[in-house]
This record gives sequence, structure tokens and C-alpha cells, in this order.
Amino acid sequence: MTNSLTHFIEERMMIDFTTLRFALLADTFHCPVKGDFEFNVDFLILVNHQGDIADTVKADDTHHADMVVALREAGKLEVLPKGQYLMPGLVDLHCHAPQWPQAGKGLDLPLFDWLQNYTFPLENRYADNAFAANIYQDVSRTLLANGTTSAVYFASIHRESTEVLAQSCLELGQRAFVGKVNMDNQEQCPDFYRENSVEQALYETELFVNNVRGLAGNEGGLVKPVITPRFVPSCTDPMLKGLGELVQKYDLHMQTHCSESDWARDYSIERYGMSDIAIYAEAGLLNNKSVLAHSIFIDEKDIAMLNQLGAGIGHCPLSNMYFANAAMQTRELLDANVRVGLGSDIAGAPSPSIFRACFDAVTHSRVREDGVDCHLPADQRGVSGSRISYLESFWMATNGGGQVLNEKIGVFASDYHFDAIVVSPDSERGNLRVWPEMDSPRDILEKIISLSQTDNISKVWVQGKQVR
Amino acid sequence: MTNSLTHFIEERMMIDFTTLRFALLADTFHCPVKGDFEFNVDFLILVNHQGDIADTVKADDTHHADMVVALREAGKLEVLPKGQYLMPGLVDLHCHAPQWPQAGKGLDLPLFDWLQNYTFPLENRYADNAFAANIYQDVSRTLLANGTTSAVYFASIHRESTEVLAQSCLELGQRAFVGKVNMDNQEQCPDFYRENSVEQALYETELFVNNVRGLAGNEGGLVKPVITPRFVPSCTDPMLKGLGELVQKYDLHMQTHCSESDWARDYSIERYGMSDIAIYAEAGLLNNKSVLAHSIFIDEKDIAMLNQLGAGIGHCPLSNMYFANAAMQTRELLDANVRVGLGSDIAGAPSPSIFRACFDAVTHSRVREDGVDCHLPADQRGVSGSRISYLESFWMATNGGGQVLNEKIGVFASDYHFDAIVVSPDSERGNLRVWPEMDSPRDILEKIISLSQTDNISKVWVQGKQVR
Ligand SMILES: [Zn+2]
Ligand SMILES: [Zn+2]
Repeated sequence: MTNSLTHFIEERMMIDFTTLRFALLADTFHCPVKGDFEFNVDFLILVNHQGDIADTVKADDTHHADMVVALREAGKLEVLPKGQYLMPGLVDLHCHAPQWPQAGKGLDLPLFDWLQNYTFPLENRYADNAFAANIYQDVSRTLLANGTTSAVYFASIHRESTEVLAQSCLELGQRAFVGKVNMDNQEQCPDFYRENSVEQALYETELFVNNVRGLAGNEGGLVKPVITPRFVPSCTDPMLKGLGELVQKYDLHMQTHCSESDWARDYSIERYGMSDIAIYAEAGLLNNKSVLAHSIFIDEKDIAMLNQLGAGIGHCPLSNMYFANAAMQTRELLDANVRVGLGSDIAGAPSPSIFRACFDAVTHSRVREDGVDCHLPADQRGVSGSRISYLESFWMATNGGGQVLNEKIGVFASDYHFDAIVVSPDSERGNLRVWPEMDSPRDILEKIISLSQTDNISKVWVQGKQVR
Repeated sequence: MTNSLTHFIEERMMIDFTTLRFALLADTFHCPVKGDFEFNVDFLILVNHQGDIADTVKADDTHHADMVVALREAGKLEVLPKGQYLMPGLVDLHCHAPQWPQAGKGLDLPLFDWLQNYTFPLENRYADNAFAANIYQDVSRTLLANGTTSAVYFASIHRESTEVLAQSCLELGQRAFVGKVNMDNQEQCPDFYRENSVEQALYETELFVNNVRGLAGNEGGLVKPVITPRFVPSCTDPMLKGLGELVQKYDLHMQTHCSESDWARDYSIERYGMSDIAIYAEAGLLNNKSVLAHSIFIDEKDIAMLNQLGAGIGHCPLSNMYFANAAMQTRELLDANVRVGLGSDIAGAPSPSIFRACFDAVTHSRVREDGVDCHLPADQRGVSGSRISYLESFWMATNGGGQVLNEKIGVFASDYHFDAIVVSPDSERGNLRVWPEMDSPRDILEKIISLSQTDNISKVWVQGKQVR
């Protein structure tokens, strides 16, 4: 009888159970549409042997009940206990992996001192592969523990240890986009920490691309190389052009910093008479999977260019509150349908949690709306109408991040990779409490964003594989 | 020989070991001086049977080594393992205990809707003592787990369940300052949630004061009653005056909201032609242990009045970023030597962590300094020179909070209560990492502020008693 039910279901759902690695029955949050969310009780997600989602079935589907029975009989069903919540894995679009030991210290310093006296000397220690291996493993493991299933990493200028980072992510099972940093402008980079020559840097970068793509076990492309000019001031023209050619030649991801501060914006205007986005576009660096971190001081022309090229933004709200000199135009960018996701910006901000980034993005928009100076009249203080919602923010943390990377991640839908986390409120430990009688699904989602700690993240899957 | 050493030490240090409950040898952070910190390796703290600090001995004291030996021989010595850090317990000056189930939800709502449609109906459920007991126990336990050894609680208008809160704190061993809320202005308070009459409210409040003072087990005054007018708009004149008389009659703590928003500031000017602080002072509500939450829109006259009366401020940075319409003048208040501590403002902000408030206070000051509007010139955006440091922030979270309450808490010094926490970085779990080779004591303190989660707080003592 079971066999006939299985066959019936397989035929009706047009699925062959032998192609499935497992199916998960779970109360599930995700954001297929920006600004909205879905909460599906007893959502059924079928995951194939490649780790992709073969199909999803809602509880009100005619075949849902039979499907559950058939999958259980076939030994393929995992059931999430009630009171735990399945969500898409979080996407961190901007993390400086080598700066992890610096996270949470020195934020009092002016940015220039912070970079020259602390960050660059620290990054330069990654010439030592053993030093790098130890820290990089901790970064990837910590981000996974925080629910970050996909991370976009700035490493250092060292090819070898950046490959160690790629290898480490691959071993730990984290979807990663890893970049060897390029910086060669003698006027801006310290003597002890910059490329020897453009030629050598481009050679090493191309080698890096091929080595990462060729890593044993990386046939599915879980870890991808990313072209990574640090930012306009640290690169010469030939460097930007050469890196742009590599982006084109291999159709690569690209990450860099964009218009982060008054100084950065002014520097580009003075040197090129152009905005950062125009400079990167002209160098051939931008495509439909580029990640521009920050992008505070951009204008309508820049926004049009982003949309035309399909390039996206990695918004790092906490870092912006420390170093950006002004608030992100998040409201306008979302309204203009620019692709935007979130970044931790470790160590420009200390927290490795994208739930925290999610919360901070809302906070940041609220401060922007109200302004800061209590001695000004209310209507001259802020930028009215600029608040964003938690739902928009969670969309950025998942779906939006996936769109920026042009990857099938961030929602639960057929053909998407199964990257997911389980959040478990605990009535005894941590800070996340859910009172079923008082909390709606939307309340629960907002509480998860506001109050989760690492210990609330009880399971993590990447590409269908449980990695925690 | 041991006995003779003990006698020698007891005489030299003028201390009788039999008066000691225990002594703790620990690597210790605290902030005796605002804006600075002390890190004492192998700091020795002697705690007497009352739970107060009998003496402290630094590692470079002549008698330190002998003292450690003698205390160990006397069976009085506890030694904190290296890599764990002892700090003063954290002080939360502003927490709405009944709003805990609301923490982390509805922050998208306008303040008026949030209060009328969610907060007031929720607070009104605390007419039910059984409902209250369940939640209040979780609040106190959760704050303790976050290292908050002293909490100042707004409860609800209900005397009985507010006594349940007091009882709950006493049982869990948390130092608490608990207020039955008073609100009677028909024009501002909903029909379903306000006092029946001023007379009855004052009668209940006085009864509350005496009942809390008289709680069995509260002879040492671990839990204290606090007079709690909600804020100017929700109280009639006779209510404010009557509460002021109670403050004077019993020399009580007082807590309320002060000049939190444009609307609140304007309301007071229209109704009284005075600032909130002037109104509270005139009603006799302010003394040397009053806690004014927020206090955003205050001027130099207000500041002078605060210092003259010795009244203090509970700064709630995260809540301010959501609801205050402008940024706190923290820099100016610290420079003017106003007593300032920190508050969580649950549920105007979601986090029960005062480490988080500590971090947010710095973030808030940085946003204030830089401003928000990227379309304005840099020098017109913010309030230059307004940043505060992590050390100032940690001082507020401990020593400053103690000064606001006029209690001997927040530093490790003779005659102070031994309220303390242990923070334990963990290289495998959570987000707090310390690399001894790379992190100075100041770095470690900043990392603790930035990256601790509840699980890093491994021990909590209040009044010399280990409560977690
Ligand atoms: Zn960055
Ligand atoms: Zn409040």
C-alpha cells in the first residue's frame, strides 16, 4: 500500500524519490517578495542529491499529507520539532577575514590610524600561511555558527594564504566568495603592504582564480574566486584595468569598496572627475554579480548605472555608523530596485552576525529619518520617510544578498540551493523568547532578528549538507 | 607556621579572617575614574559576611603573596582561572519589566500606536498575578544572565503584581529598584489602563513602599521601592505633587521619563511653560538618587538643576535611535559631570544586555558626530566633537549607574557591595575571541563590550552571593 502511495505521489508530483537526499518538514520563514514575508507551517522541502531544492509543498497542497506519509515510509523525511524555525541561510556580502582578530577593538581610532597602524600590519601577517590557517578556520566556522551560509571575503594581498581561506571554507562546507586583495598605489599603500608590481599582481590573481576553481572537492563551485581591488585610492589605473580584464575573461565576481566616506568620494572626483561607480564601470569591473560595499555617497546617475549593469551593493550598517560620515540611502536604493544585501564589514564593525546587520540596517534608517541634532528644528534634522522595515531588512539578508551575487540562494524554491538554518528559541537560555499565545509569525521573525544569539542557531545546511 | 602567617597578615592588613565570607583572586577590570580603566592582574578582593568588600589588594602590594597563601590555608580563597575576567556587575537604569514579551517586536510602529495598541494592553494584563509571576521571573533571570546585577524596573499600575516583581528579584538575588507605575491623566491615558483616583493611587503607592521594604528576607534592602510617575503627560498635577511628597517623606528613589521626544518636550512647555526637569523638581520628585530616563531635549538650565539636586540620567541609546527624534547629548553631560548611567529601555529597545547598551552608546555618539544626510556638506551634517569612548561607556554601565542610584556599586573598592560578573571568552563557541599575543587589556575590554553574549557571562554575584 505504501509502495503504491509512493508511486502515486511520485507520479502526481513528477518526482522520483530515489533522486532525493532528504525532505524536511518545518515551520518556515522566507521572503520571496521584497518587503513581505511568508510563514509556512509544515512546509515540505525536497532536497536532491546535488543539494538543490527539487520541490516545495505547502501544507494546503492536495498531496501534502500523502507526500509526508510516503516520504516517511521511504526513510527520507526529517521533521523539525515545533517551536523551531527554518529560514534561508544568511548572506554576508562583505567580510574582511584577516581582520577578525581586530573585531571589537580600536573602533575609537580615526579610520586612517586604524588602517595604517593596525589593519595593514595585521593583514600583512597573512604572508604566514600557518598564522592564516588558524584564523581563517575560526572566521569561517564562526560565521557558519552565526547562520552565515554564504560569505563574501576580502582576504589579504597574499595569494597563498588566500587559497588557504578558500580551502578552509570548502572543508567547513561554507559557500564562499573569496578574493585576493589587490592594492598597488605607492601614494596610498604602505611600503610594507602592497603589490610589487601590477604585472606580478595580475599574474598571481589569475593563478589564484584558476587554483580556487581547481581545488579538489570544489567541482560544484561552492567556493568561488572574486576579483578584489581594495578601493579606488589604493589602485593604479593599470591595476584597475588589468583586473577588469580578468573579470571579463573569466566572467568573475568582483568586490570592492565604493564611495564609503567624504574622503573617498572626493579622492575619486579629484583624480578622475568621476564617481567610484563610473570608474569601476569604465575599468570593466562591473557585471551582474559585482558587490560594491557601502556606496554611501552615490547619486542618481550612479544608481542608473548600477541597475543597467546589474551590479549590487553590500550594505554594512554598523560599520557605516562608525566610519561612513553619513547614512546609507537604503530607502531610495530599495525603491529604485537596486540589488542590495547586507555585510558584516568585519572588522569595520565587530559583529559576525548578519541578524545583527539586519537589525542595525533598520536602526540606521531610523536614525537617518529622525536626524541627530536636538538643537535643530525637527524638520531640519533628518531625511524624512527614510525608514526601512524589518521585512525589507531580512529580505536583504537573504534574498537580496543572493540576487547581488546572482546565485540561487536566499529563498526556498525549486532549483535553488538548499542553504538553510534552524533558529531555536529557548525559554531557559539566551535572550530569544517566544510566547505562542502573544506572538504572531511576524512577531517571531522580528524577535529572531532582534534577539538571536549564536546558540539559538541550532542547525546549518549549505548545499543540502548539514555543516553544523 | 601557617597560623603565624595568618596572624601576621591579619594584623598587618588589619583584617580578621573570620569576618570574611571568601576572597577572590582574579584578573579584574573596572573603571574607578570616568574615561579611564584599571586592569589588575591577580587582584585580590576580600568579601565579608555581609557581602561587602572588606578590602582589595593589588598584585604589587608587599603583602599580596603572603595574603594569598594565608587565605588559601584558611580555606577562604577562590581563584579565577586565567583567561577569565572579573568585572563589576552591570547596572540597568531603565527597564519596563512587563514589556519583556514585547521585546523585539513592533518596533516598526509609530510610538503612539505602539503604546496604545500594544504596550498598554500588555501592561494591563499584569492585573493577573499569575501571569505576572511567570514573566517577571523570566525578566529578572534573563537580566542576571546578561550580567545585570542591579536593575531599575518600571512595572505596571498594579500594586500587587509589582510586589510579585519585587519578590521575584529578591528570590533570584538581583539588586532591584522596583516601581509601581502611576498614571492618571484622563486626557492621555486609556480608560482601561489608568488609576481610579489620585487618592487611591497614592494610598496604594505608599502601601507598596512599605510592603517592599518589609518583605521577608529584604532586611538588607536588596530590593528597594521606587516612586514612578510614568511621565509628565500621563500625570495630573495632584499626582505629581502627591508622589513628590512620598519621595520626601521616605527619602525614596524616583524614576520617570524625561524630555524623550519633540512631542514630550513640547507638551510640557505648553502645559506648564517649563521643562520636564523643572516640573519634576517643583513637584519635589528629584533628589540625589532620581533616575531620569532619556533626557534628550534638555538645556543648560536643566543640566545645572540636575547637578544642583544630584539627580541622574538613564541613557538608553538603542531606544533613542528608534524613538527619541534626536541624539543624546552624552558628550556634554559627561563633560558637565552629570551623573549618567545606561538603560536597556526594554521594550523600547529589544536587548536585555547592558554590554549592548554600552556598545550602542558609543555608536549613537558616533552617528551624532557625523550626522546622517549625505546630501549636506560634511560640516553641516552632525555635531562635531560629540563622540564618547568605550571606556566612558563602560564607566556609565557600572560606576556611573551606581552613582545615579547613590549606591555603593559599580567599582571594586572597600565598603562597596560585591556585585560582580565573570566574562569567559571561548575559542570554540560564541563570538568573543581573545588572542593573548595580539590583544592588550584595553582591547580585551572593548571586545567584551562588543562581542559578549549571555553564554560568555559565566558567573554572577550580587551582594557577595553567587546567584548564577
Ligand atoms: Zn570593508
Ligand atoms: Zn521607558
